[in-house]
Amino acid sequence: MTYDDEKEKSSAGPNSADDRVLGRLIAFSDGVFAIAITLLIIGVVIPEGTTDFNLNAVLSSLWPNYLAFLISFFVIGLYWIVHVRQFRFVRKYDSALLWLNLLFLLFIVIMPFTTSIVSRYESQTAVIIYAANVACVGYTRTAAWFYSAHNHRLIDKRLTSPYIKRTTILNLIAPSIFALSIGIAFINYHLAQYIWISIFIIHVIASPIFRLPKLD
Amino acid sequence: MTYDDEKEKSSAGPNSADDRVLGRLIAFSDGVFAIAITLLIIGVVIPEGTTDFNLNAVLSSLWPNYLAFLISFFVIGLYWIVHVRQFRFVRKYDSALLWLNLLFLLFIVIMPFTTSIVSRYESQTAVIIYAANVACVGYTRTAAWFYSAHNHRLIDKRLTSPYIKRTTILNLIAPSIFALSIGIAFINYHLAQYIWISIFIIHVIASPIFRLPKLD
Amino acid sequence: MTYDDEKEKSSAGPNSADDRVLGRLIAFSDGVFAIAITLLIIGVVIPEGTTDFNLNAVLSSLWPNYLAFLISFFVIGLYWIVHVRQFRFVRKYDSALLWLNLLFLLFIVIMPFTTSIVSRYESQTAVIIYAANVACVGYTRTAAWFYSAHNHRLIDKRLTSPYIKRTTILNLIAPSIFALSIGIAFINYHLAQYIWISIFIIHVIASPIFRLPKLD
Amino acid sequence: MTYDDEKEKSSAGPNSADDRVLGRLIAFSDGVFAIAITLLIIGVVIPEGTTDFNLNAVLSSLWPNYLAFLISFFVIGLYWIVHVRQFRFVRKYDSALLWLNLLFLLFIVIMPFTTSIVSRYESQTAVIIYAANVACVGYTRTAAWFYSAHNHRLIDKRLTSPYIKRTTILNLIAPSIFALSIGIAFINYHLAQYIWISIFIIHVIASPIFRLPKLD
Repeated sequence: MTYDDEKEKSSAGPNSADDRVLGRLIAFSDGVFAIAITLLIIGVVIPEGTTDFNLNAVLSSLWPNYLAFLISFFVIGLYWIVHVRQFRFVRKYDSALLWLNLLFLLFIVIMPFTTSIVSRYESQTAVIIYAANVACVGYTRTAAWFYSAHNHRLIDKRLTSPYIKRTTILNLIAPSIFALSIGIAFINYHLAQYIWISIFIIHVIASPIFRLPKLD
Repeated sequence: MTYDDEKEKSSAGPNSADDRVLGRLIAFSDGVFAIAITLLIIGVVIPEGTTDFNLNAVLSSLWPNYLAFLISFFVIGLYWIVHVRQFRFVRKYDSALLWLNLLFLLFIVIMPFTTSIVSRYESQTAVIIYAANVACVGYTRTAAWFYSAHNHRLIDKRLTSPYIKRTTILNLIAPSIFALSIGIAFINYHLAQYIWISIFIIHVIASPIFRLPKLD
Repeated sequence: MTYDDEKEKSSAGPNSADDRVLGRLIAFSDGVFAIAITLLIIGVVIPEGTTDFNLNAVLSSLWPNYLAFLISFFVIGLYWIVHVRQFRFVRKYDSALLWLNLLFLLFIVIMPFTTSIVSRYESQTAVIIYAANVACVGYTRTAAWFYSAHNHRLIDKRLTSPYIKRTTILNLIAPSIFALSIGIAFINYHLAQYIWISIFIIHVIASPIFRLPKLD
Repeated sequence: MTYDDEKEKSSAGPNSADDRVLGRLIAFSDGVFAIAITLLIIGVVIPEGTTDFNLNAVLSSLWPNYLAFLISFFVIGLYWIVHVRQFRFVRKYDSALLWLNLLFLLFIVIMPFTTSIVSRYESQTAVIIYAANVACVGYTRTAAWFYSAHNHRLIDKRLTSPYIKRTTILNLIAPSIFALSIGIAFINYHLAQYIWISIFIIHVIASPIFRLPKLD
C-alpha cells in the first residue's frame, strides 16, 4: 500500500499519525503560551536614572505596569486553560486546524507588545489596541473550536450537538465584551479599562458554566 | 453516552483525560520554569560605556548581580525539583489545581524582575520585595500541594496521612524563613540577605528530610 | 549482549531508542520554533521619547515593523508545519540528521535578528540579508528532508519514490524564489519585497500540492 | 502498602516513576537548551545611531559577534546532542542526578552572557571568562555522566565497563582543551581563540569516536 494520494485527514487511533501531529500542535502551543506569559515581565522595566533613594517612588509609579502585567498574565493563563479544555476532545487534525491555531497564537505572541503599550501610555489608542488584541485572541480561539466541533468534524463523537452550540456561544462572551469596550473607549477610555477588570470577576463567578465535560 | 453534565474531575487511568491534562500542566510548567531560569541572565548586563580597559573593574563591580542570579537560579531550580517530586503523586486534576498552579507560576515569572531589583539597588525596599517574592513562590506551592493532598483529593491513595501532614509542614519552612526575613529587613536589610544564604546551607543538610517517597 | 560496537543507527520499533531520540529532536525543535516566533515581537519596539500625544503617529510609522513581523511569523509558522509534516514519516535517526536539523534551526534562530534589520533599515543590504536568511531556512529544510528520504534512508518504507522526488522538488520552490529575489534586489530592492508577499499568496493557492500523505 | 520510608531511587520499568521523572528532567533540559541557543541572537545588536547609509559598514564591523554567536550556537548544539546520547542509557534517577544536571544547565544558561562579553570586548579577561564557561559546561556534563554510569549506578546494565571508562575519558578532551586555552590566554589571548576553532575541526573528524552505542 502506498500513501501517494491520501488526503491529510484520517480517522484517529492510539499512537496514530493524528495523535502525533496533535501532540506537536499542543507542545508547540504550550511553548508559545509559556514564553509569551514569561516575556510579559520584560515589559515591566525600572527606568534609567533610578537610584537607591528614589526606588520606592519609582516602584510606586509603576502600578499601571503591574496591573497590565497581571491582566495579561491571567488572559494568557485563562486561554491556556481554555486551549487545554478544548483540545481534550480533539481527535483528528487537518491543515486548516494547524493554520487556525497558528492565527490564534499570533495574537498570543503580540500580547507582550500591546501590554507594554497599555501600561506605558495613558491614551485612547493604547486602550483600543489592547482591547482589540484580547478580542482577537478570544475570537480566533472560538473560530478554531467552532471549526473543530462543527458537525463533529475533528472532535470526539460523543459530545452532543447542543453542548457544542452552547460552548461556542459561551466562548464568544469574553471577546465580545472586549470588542464592546473598544466602542466605549471612543467615549471614555478609563471606563473601558474598568470593564476589563469586571470581566475577570464575572469569569470567576460564571466559571463553572464555561467548563467542558470530561472524556476518559 | 453523552458528556454534557459530567463534572471536570474523574477517576484516573492510564492515558485517561486526567493523564493528558496533567501532562500539559507539567509541560506548560516546565516551559515557564525553563524560560524564567534562562531569562535571569538577561538581568546581568554590562553597563554602557564599558571599554576593553575598564572591563575587569566593571565585571568585579557586578558581583551583587552574580550573587542574586545564583540565588534565583537555585530557588527556581529547587522549586522545579519540588514540583517534579510532588506531581509524581498527582493522579487527577480539577479546575482549582490548574488555577493554583498558575498562581504559583505567576511568582516564578516575576522572579527575573525582583532579582534585577535586588541586584541593582542597595535598599531595604529591594530586599523586602525579593523576600516577599520567594515567600509567595513557597506558599503558593505549598497551597497547591496541600489542596491536592488533603483528604487524598487528587493524589495517589497509597500516600499515608501522617506523611502528607509532615510534607506540608516541611514545605512551609523555607517560605516562612523568607517571610521572617521581611521583618528582619525592617531592622537590618543586610542581615536579611545573610539569612537567605543560610537557608541554602540548611537545605543541603536537611535535604533528605524533604524527600517524597517513590511510587512505581 | 553488549553495545560496544553497534553503530548509531538502528531499525525502528515502538518506544525504541529511535523513537526516544526522535522525540527529543522534535521537542527541542518545537522549543526553538516557539521561542524564535515569540521573540519576533521583541523586535517591534516603541522608540524612546514617545509620549501619550505622539503615540498614534509613532505607531503608524512602525508599519514596516508590523509587516516584517507578520512575514517572519508566517515563515516560521509555515516551516514549523513543514517540519511537522515531514517528521511524521521519519522513523530512524542518525548523527547527520541531528546536525542537519541543527543547521536548519540555526537559520530559524537568526530570523529575529534579520527581521529587525529589514524592518528598521530601508536598504538593499537589509533586503538581501533577509532574503538570504529565508532561502537558507528553506534549503537546509529541503536538505534534511532529502537526506532522510533518499533511498528511504530514515523514513517510512511505504512512501513511494516518485512521491519523495516530487516533494523534494516542491520544497525547493519557496527558497528558490527568495534566492531569486536576492538577484532582483541588486536591481530594485522594493520589487524584491513585493515578490516575498506574492509567495505567500501563491502558497495559499498551491498549498494542497505541498501536502504530504498521512500514515497511521 | 505505604510509601513513607522508601528512598528516592527505584528499579526501572516502563511508565514507572523513574520514566516520568526522567521525562521531566529531559523536557526541562530541552527547554533550557532551546531558550539559551535562541537567546544567543539577542546578543547580536545593531548599535544605536546606525542609519540606512552606514548599515553595511556597521554590519561588517560586527563579525566578532557573528563568530562568537556561531561558536556558542555549536557549543550548545553539541552539548544538546551529547545530552541526548547519554540520556538514552539512563534508566533511573536520584536526587544527585537532578542537581548535577541543574549545575550543568547553570553553565548553559550563562553562555549568552559570556558570549556577549567575548564578542564585544577585545580583552584577555573576556577570553578567559568564555573559555572557563565552556570548560565548566564540559566538566559538569562529564561529572553527571560519570556519576550516572559509575558502577552502572543509574544506566542500562548492558553497557560494558571499558566502554563507560572510554566514554568518560573522551568526554574530558573538549573541556580540557578549553581549560588549557585559559593558560594560553595569559600569554596570548588571540592564540587561545584560534585553539577553540581548531577544536571544532577536530571534533568533526573525531566525531565517530565520541559516539555512544544504541539500545533498543
